[in-house]
Amino acid sequence: MRDTKPVILVTNDDDITAPGIHALVDSVRSLGTVVVVAPDRAQSGMGHAITIGVPLRMNKVNLFGDDIEAWQCSGTPVDCVKLARDKILHRVPDICLSGINHGANHSINIIYSGTMSAATEAAIEGITSIGFSTLDYNFEADFTVPKKVAYKFTKRVLEDKTLHGALFNVNIPVVPEEHLKGIRICRQAKAKWDEDFDERRDPHGEKYYWLTGNFKNMDEGEDTDVWALENNYVSVVPVQFDLTNYKLKKELEKRWKL
Amino acid sequence: MRDTKPVILVTNDDDITAPGIHALVDSVRSLGTVVVVAPDRAQSGMGHAITIGVPLRMNKVNLFGDDIEAWQCSGTPVDCVKLARDKILHRVPDICLSGINHGANHSINIIYSGTMSAATEAAIEGITSIGFSTLDYNFEADFTVPKKVAYKFTKRVLEDKTLHGALFNVNIPVVPEEHLKGIRICRQAKAKWDEDFDERRDPHGEKYYWLTGNFKNMDEGEDTDVWALENNYVSVVPVQFDLTNYKLKKELEKRWKL
Repeated sequence: MRDTKPVILVTNDDDITAPGIHALVDSVRSLGTVVVVAPDRAQSGMGHAITIGVPLRMNKVNLFGDDIEAWQCSGTPVDCVKLARDKILHRVPDICLSGINHGANHSINIIYSGTMSAATEAAIEGITSIGFSTLDYNFEADFTVPKKVAYKFTKRVLEDKTLHGALFNVNIPVVPEEHLKGIRICRQAKAKWDEDFDERRDPHGEKYYWLTGNFKNMDEGEDTDVWALENNYVSVVPVQFDLTNYKLKKELEKRWKL
Repeated sequence: MRDTKPVILVTNDDDITAPGIHALVDSVRSLGTVVVVAPDRAQSGMGHAITIGVPLRMNKVNLFGDDIEAWQCSGTPVDCVKLARDKILHRVPDICLSGINHGANHSINIIYSGTMSAATEAAIEGITSIGFSTLDYNFEADFTVPKKVAYKFTKRVLEDKTLHGALFNVNIPVVPEEHLKGIRICRQAKAKWDEDFDERRDPHGEKYYWLTGNFKNMDEGEDTDVWALENNYVSVVPVQFDLTNYKLKKELEKRWKL
């Protein structure tokens, strides 16, 4: 595993056979030694879940060509990153890339996203990390533009040593290359999902529920990821995982005599 | 459901039969109309996972006395909050309480915690929300102190209208009441888990892995939740879910010509 070329850990949440992870590996394989550790089944919406009560399995697979070590794992995207570091790489990779996710992970979606949680897990370990998502949910999506974006952005982050340990959420709009306006550094838009569970009855007359919902952007700012994507920019949100609300902390320290 | 008393939604991640959620309901039932919607099995470490590919079930149960409506749900803690709002309460509760978790959710544990993710989900909906955790993992933990803390803190938050929509991560040390020094408003300590997967072989000779790890606090600050707990304080971290790294955003806007 020791090499002068950077070691690039690649994972995702759509599973190791998804076109998005193959597009990502193709786009960055010239930039270093790629090692893939990804789930053996779809793990969308898994957030930062880890597997505690069940043991994990890993199988070596040849899905990306003979020159790329690849493992499918029975766990969540976060489990994949943990296993990769402890049991496969036996070292800290130079960068972790997650995706390319089939579907948007902008705004509040970052919280539910297995793609971004895998990238965040790596960043907690001090590893520079990027999650990539295309707004095209289709499994037959055209990855021409997302691949170019993944290559350019990864190269730039690898070359800029001041970005060591940084974490990025990159979303790519569905537009032909000639209409893409460039990359925007953004903040996470204030948004949420209005739940609307689809209530049905099974053949035995018992109720069951499918989660559905409507996305609601509550943010009119022009510096958000949602705005950038609506205006044909690639959105790049630098991400952190200190969830402290410092403003409220300060207020309460003044107001409450505890 | 309409009532002049506040509506208190209670959930957890240890499952609806866990002593911790019963302690929580007992401690706050005098403060309003309690409705419980909690998972039907342990969901520790589920983070902000939601259930997409599988439908959800709910069953009404009588586990907290005749005066408390309670539902067990087949989904994750976040699913419970979503279902509670859309299918049970048909309104926004006045407050959402999650826990009392059997085990610490301080520092980086907030990211993996089903308890805190349930509370965060409610906060995304604009609901004032508190996650409670005791540092005692034992299912036979003594809840005398945690119950008093849950009652006092919930009452205070309900009474302070300026805290509407706020989100708190409350951890309670394992000390007799006379040694408890009080409550500290804290920030999330910088910490991580050093993974150490336990590698075994099944009866067929195939490898499998159990996730284990060692907690590593990298933060010497005296304003952190870890410090507070080590010094016999209840730690209260005000929490937010905008994950934007504003410092890096500003730097990149200056440095990068995109």
